[in-house]
Amino acid sequence: MDRRNFIKAGGVGLAATTIAAPAIAQTTPTLSWRLVASWPKSLDTLFGGADYFAKLVAEMTDNKFQIRTFAGGELVPPLQVLDAVQNGTVELGHTAPYYYVGKDPTFTFDCTAPFGANYRIQNSWLRNGGGRALMDEFYAGYNVVSIPCGNTGTQSGGWWKKEIKTVSDLKGVKFRIGGWGGAVLSKLGVVPQMLAGGDIYPALEKGTIDGAEWVGPYDDEKLGFQKVCKYYYHPGWWEGQAQLSAYINLGKWHSLSKTYQTVIKAAAAEANNWMIGKYDADNPAALKRLIAGGTQLRYWSRPIMEACFKASRQLYAEESARNPKFKKVYSEWTPFLATEDEWMRVDEQQFDNFMYAKVGARA
Amino acid sequence: MDRRNFIKAGGVGLAATTIAAPAIAQTTPTLSWRLVASWPKSLDTLFGGADYFAKLVAEMTDNKFQIRTFAGGELVPPLQVLDAVQNGTVELGHTAPYYYVGKDPTFTFDCTAPFGANYRIQNSWLRNGGGRALMDEFYAGYNVVSIPCGNTGTQSGGWWKKEIKTVSDLKGVKFRIGGWGGAVLSKLGVVPQMLAGGDIYPALEKGTIDGAEWVGPYDDEKLGFQKVCKYYYHPGWWEGQAQLSAYINLGKWHSLSKTYQTVIKAAAAEANNWMIGKYDADNPAALKRLIAGGTQLRYWSRPIMEACFKASRQLYAEESARNPKFKKVYSEWTPFLATEDEWMRVDEQQFDNFMYAKVGARA
Repeated sequence: MDRRNFIKAGGVGLAATTIAAPAIAQTTPTLSWRLVASWPKSLDTLFGGADYFAKLVAEMTDNKFQIRTFAGGELVPPLQVLDAVQNGTVELGHTAPYYYVGKDPTFTFDCTAPFGANYRIQNSWLRNGGGRALMDEFYAGYNVVSIPCGNTGTQSGGWWKKEIKTVSDLKGVKFRIGGWGGAVLSKLGVVPQMLAGGDIYPALEKGTIDGAEWVGPYDDEKLGFQKVCKYYYHPGWWEGQAQLSAYINLGKWHSLSKTYQTVIKAAAAEANNWMIGKYDADNPAALKRLIAGGTQLRYWSRPIMEACFKASRQLYAEESARNPKFKKVYSEWTPFLATEDEWMRVDEQQFDNFMYAKVGARA
Repeated sequence: MDRRNFIKAGGVGLAATTIAAPAIAQTTPTLSWRLVASWPKSLDTLFGGADYFAKLVAEMTDNKFQIRTFAGGELVPPLQVLDAVQNGTVELGHTAPYYYVGKDPTFTFDCTAPFGANYRIQNSWLRNGGGRALMDEFYAGYNVVSIPCGNTGTQSGGWWKKEIKTVSDLKGVKFRIGGWGGAVLSKLGVVPQMLAGGDIYPALEKGTIDGAEWVGPYDDEKLGFQKVCKYYYHPGWWEGQAQLSAYINLGKWHSLSKTYQTVIKAAAAEANNWMIGKYDADNPAALKRLIAGGTQLRYWSRPIMEACFKASRQLYAEESARNPKFKKVYSEWTPFLATEDEWMRVDEQQFDNFMYAKVGARA
């Protein structure tokens, strides 16, 4: 190429660059955001999910959109992630929305609700059952956008120092529980305690609480509950699934191009599937280790399940009567879930129940 | 700004652009790819999933990476998507991997296998149970990379002109069925037929087949099976879930930057969650319409389920004995699934069975 052609070619290239530059600057700017999580770094599925999400965003944007992740307590206390994002202290959070039911129980629908949805139904409700629009409207009041970014599946029913054989055994038990499940249990005499993940074991050890639930075998084992509690109950009816959310400051969200918004949405979906896949693979091995170490597996008796279910319906009705925001979501959420339950019985449940009974007969 | 400063500023900008240009060109080039799907456009969940995936990729790349989608038959026949991607006729496909079990039954593990995984377990097997590496190795022989990009959940057990009350009623029935479920049914006397989605209704109407399965209520209703078959059976034990895959030509995949590879991976995850969410919301309404229109719901009897399960174990054993590639995957897949089944009984099944029985009692 002679110099003249080089200049000419360069000139065309430069002209194009000059014209395109403003559009590029708007859609894919260099950004450095901070994410505060509610989790200690030791929980490599929960905190790992936030980290994976951040890594995906960087990879998809050629490292232009960087997100630094901080564990609970590093920048803000683990249970104040919402506040930090709402105030714009940080751009992003990764948390369990039900940590904020003290502000308004409506948060529960974006996370997990007692005797509520399972993993599939939660996904469908948000995407196709009107859930997204309802929660967006609710979250606008908190200056936040919430995007599902991880899930645990059905959680376990927690660790108890004493066996719970009857409903009356629940009375007076100081039990660490996240979210709105505690409000249901309090109707049956439990004294619910809210503590962040890292604070539970010391409280169990000191005896300031009598039991605790966190997630399931893999995480619970890491937190060490098996060292102080003998009985491990199932299922965690207060968390038929538990959705973790990426919280994004509303102003910051609207400052993003459609390009970056879609990057965040897709990264969150991939992180979601990554997390549930990891839990589903890691939980069974952990449960086997726990049982080998002396943990006693227990299932809630039918009368306890029924009493808790009844208490949950009372709580939903009471909150609907006093909280119009809650009522608005609940009145659309309930019929959607009932329709899903009915449908899931036709194929999913038939298949699952047949297969689950075939353990050992597969090969 | 005076001219001197403008030139200086421009110069710095231009120099920076010139330095950055090669890197930008390598990682985020302008691309125009073609995707051939196995589906007619009328199936807005299956074909819609491929379309949504393409839209996400474009959005995340500032429209630089364009994927044009084609319905089955537009460029290549619906059941020859693998061949088109393998040969490089097109860069991408969207298909059900089990359409290719005629080439090698090992494809079944990347899609759905009779009495195999449910949705959650399939996700976990691929991500954390060694499935991804096993399938990548297998697919390398077909010059293809397969990425999960949609799922139907547990499918229905198909439409039958006559009731199937006993195992012997299966004998001689010409039944359209996708994938390896047909090989199981043939052990019980069924004459399995493989037809693409759009070809099934005409065959049922003409009487060249006696029954057909496709997906579930929403899709099946669109294809019109209820007009010619009275009995709708459940569950589709041959498809406890059915994963649809984005197939990418291996050379084309390796030509992509890490940036674009991650974009494709995350777009596929979002499309996956989109599709299952849509099926879960649309299926119950369709089932109600079908029943209102006279469709008779039937469940497989226990003896039929057991006979089919037994036949499936025979088939797996026979194929393992003659096919080392199949054996390699099967021998890792089976124990993973057994472990998952055992674990899923502890929390998921307890929760689901309790809730599914509460239909109508939620509110």
